[in-house]
Amino acid sequence: MTTIPYKTYLSEAELPQAYYNVRADMKTDHRPLLHPETLQPVTVADLEPIFCRELAKQELNATDRFIPIPDEILQFYRMYRPSPLVRAYCLERELDTPAEIYYKYEGGNTSGSHKLNTAIAQAYYAKEQGLKGVTTETGAGQWGSALAMACAYFGLDLKVFMVRCSIEQKPYRKVLMETYGATVLPSPSNTTIAGRSFLADDPDSSGSLGMAISEAIEVSLADPNYRYTLGSVLNQVLLHQSIIGLETKAALDQLAVEADILIGCAGGGSNLGGLMAGFIGDKLKGGRGPHIIAVEPASCPTLTRGKFSYDYCDTGKVTPLAMMYTLGSGFVPAAGHAGGLRYHGMSPIISQLYHDGYIEEARSYGQKDVFAAAIRFARCEGLLPAPESAHAIKAAIDEAEKCKENGEKKVIVFGLTGMGSFDLSAYAAYNADLLENTGLEESSLRSSLAKLPVV
Amino acid sequence: MTTIPYKTYLSEAELPQAYYNVRADMKTDHRPLLHPETLQPVTVADLEPIFCRELAKQELNATDRFIPIPDEILQFYRMYRPSPLVRAYCLERELDTPAEIYYKYEGGNTSGSHKLNTAIAQAYYAKEQGLKGVTTETGAGQWGSALAMACAYFGLDLKVFMVRCSIEQKPYRKVLMETYGATVLPSPSNTTIAGRSFLADDPDSSGSLGMAISEAIEVSLADPNYRYTLGSVLNQVLLHQSIIGLETKAALDQLAVEADILIGCAGGGSNLGGLMAGFIGDKLKGGRGPHIIAVEPASCPTLTRGKFSYDYCDTGKVTPLAMMYTLGSGFVPAAGHAGGLRYHGMSPIISQLYHDGYIEEARSYGQKDVFAAAIRFARCEGLLPAPESAHAIKAAIDEAEKCKENGEKKVIVFGLTGMGSFDLSAYAAYNADLLENTGLEESSLRSSLAKLPVV
Repeated sequence: MTTIPYKTYLSEAELPQAYYNVRADMKTDHRPLLHPETLQPVTVADLEPIFCRELAKQELNATDRFIPIPDEILQFYRMYRPSPLVRAYCLERELDTPAEIYYKYEGGNTSGSHKLNTAIAQAYYAKEQGLKGVTTETGAGQWGSALAMACAYFGLDLKVFMVRCSIEQKPYRKVLMETYGATVLPSPSNTTIAGRSFLADDPDSSGSLGMAISEAIEVSLADPNYRYTLGSVLNQVLLHQSIIGLETKAALDQLAVEADILIGCAGGGSNLGGLMAGFIGDKLKGGRGPHIIAVEPASCPTLTRGKFSYDYCDTGKVTPLAMMYTLGSGFVPAAGHAGGLRYHGMSPIISQLYHDGYIEEARSYGQKDVFAAAIRFARCEGLLPAPESAHAIKAAIDEAEKCKENGEKKVIVFGLTGMGSFDLSAYAAYNADLLENTGLEESSLRSSLAKLPVV
Repeated sequence: MTTIPYKTYLSEAELPQAYYNVRADMKTDHRPLLHPETLQPVTVADLEPIFCRELAKQELNATDRFIPIPDEILQFYRMYRPSPLVRAYCLERELDTPAEIYYKYEGGNTSGSHKLNTAIAQAYYAKEQGLKGVTTETGAGQWGSALAMACAYFGLDLKVFMVRCSIEQKPYRKVLMETYGATVLPSPSNTTIAGRSFLADDPDSSGSLGMAISEAIEVSLADPNYRYTLGSVLNQVLLHQSIIGLETKAALDQLAVEADILIGCAGGGSNLGGLMAGFIGDKLKGGRGPHIIAVEPASCPTLTRGKFSYDYCDTGKVTPLAMMYTLGSGFVPAAGHAGGLRYHGMSPIISQLYHDGYIEEARSYGQKDVFAAAIRFARCEGLLPAPESAHAIKAAIDEAEKCKENGEKKVIVFGLTGMGSFDLSAYAAYNADLLENTGLEESSLRSSLAKLPVV
């Protein structure tokens, strides 16, 4: 009889009361965001037309290690957090591995992913500022759904630009957002100047997060009662998502278990950035910590094949420039199914930590292999993961199998960011053997990187 | 500061170790199942060609109050149970009611509903008997999905007959089952004698649970390595679902809270039968207990407008006859959206307890009102419910508003059986104002009841 339960829940009283700001501990801060016109470091005043005031401050805050979580946000968190840390006993048995495998499960809420953690924070600060509503973009639809729930809770209006190919793959994501009261437009759309220009270049464009961002920002700038919100990449988002890693570390501490390997899928970096929050501080101070692995799709391999360089965060080049790993802001990934991992860039914080070796490893997988891992996991652990999350599952299985070969009893912890109920068209394609391990051709990568801005 | 958390989780060590068999406490047992040919009470031997041995025994067991839960089942339960008992603080605030509202949430697993509780038990007993596989029918798809997960876990083959109109409303339910390895056929199908006969009567039949049952039984009887399984109505199902009510009562006891009103949606009765398990024993022994309300759709009002009579459990009349509230085994409900509540009959146990007044009340609602309640709930509590579950939400809201009018601080507990991620085509119809509060015409009810068998 083991003493470690299948699921470890912290009590609501043990919910973290403050977000952790990793920048306060970073030896080398990421290079500053640059204004797209002046190329000077942006100020809070520069950001205020785009983000609401408090979030603009959080975005540039490099010094406060902890930011208290407002009571109104904590109240909402109590409806679905702390999320469980699950010991994957059945997967361990299936793999016959000496490794211990744990996952932090963020898919138990209606939006189906970790995105709700920052959605409710961003909606709260917008409400507090007296705004009427917000705009955003969404890829896979997880972020849009989460923000729709958050806006419904606080009574805010919401306009979502959803990447066109994702709408087609996930029609019910759109219905979900609309059920919570949001307006959803396919991007590129003909309702914005940016959208019309993308459509002029390619009337059949399947869209990209970079394009949708340009459209959402344009709409928010046109009305002073609106601001723009973003579900990943930003420092503010990693700040809010730190609750994932703080909970994970607290739960492991309660179990007296130490992680050897920490695995997160990485699109814009919000999940990995959140998950590492409980562990990275010690490493930055020279202490020990888990070997951290970022996992991305072979079709959008930002860390593994991108360039560490200044680049725009959107395709329309209206956002500040960030120093990050990037495939180029004009990069349009193949219309693969892991919609949430299709962003051309990577969180500046994650990029800097990877560059400096605190995130030790990045790897990429083809989607066919990722779905195979997802189904193997689903059939023994019950839970059907989102394709994004399945990237981390694939890496966890690979690490556990390495442990079996080497007879090592490592502790593997991964982030299971979301559930796959809205991804069944992709599973249907896999079941019908229609998916390929699509990669990225060297020539198209080179041509995209050749267009990086010179700063 | 309140001392009652938003969510109460029992520990895994507090998982019930035995199912509760209410029949051991019933003053008047339900009248026996009758063999469809001899009209004599059925025996275990009669049931063994249909159900696996252990389940046939459980079906007829009227004496053992507790049936130990096998370790293999408990292991699976630990992956997703105990499920949370949630205090609906945000809904209380929204309604401005003095009532306390709690719900037992069963939608947190991938199948999205409470059906997994009995699916894993039925799959286990089939596996233990050395069978190759099982057959079943599914309406809304919750049961089929749950059984597909359970069969994948134990390596059993599964054939599912899915009500045709549900496949059309919920295409992704089919993909989900297939992803877990099941074969899914629309019912009525032309692969069975029963199916061909239903199609001869009506080539455009939208199907019904009663028809799908006939098909699934026919297929299982044709192969001695298969047995039939059913997700509701049966005594064995209520037995397995008792884990819901036992957990609910234990959690309320930990909070020192006593339920005044207990609300469950009722299709075949498995949710309500499970939910009441922690409460009904005391009532049957003359003690006190909550006022119990069964909620059903106006389009399929079995308890509220059906007849307490012997009837077949399926449309093809191959099953035993049960003494139950019924609309007639030939009844085909309007192709409404609450697919899981469209069964013509009602659990014999629930029927008897309702007849004897231990379940005090049944009421029905039109689906438009039910969806309005669902969305009101979703926007404040975050969670988007399945339409079936929303029937209970509607009743809970009505009761809480009554409390407000009367200034009563009652404790309302309801079962939130499932999540609505697979019901978004129905939500889309509601959003587009396409739903009506469809009822059931007196004339069609009368003509259906006129065909009840004379026993």
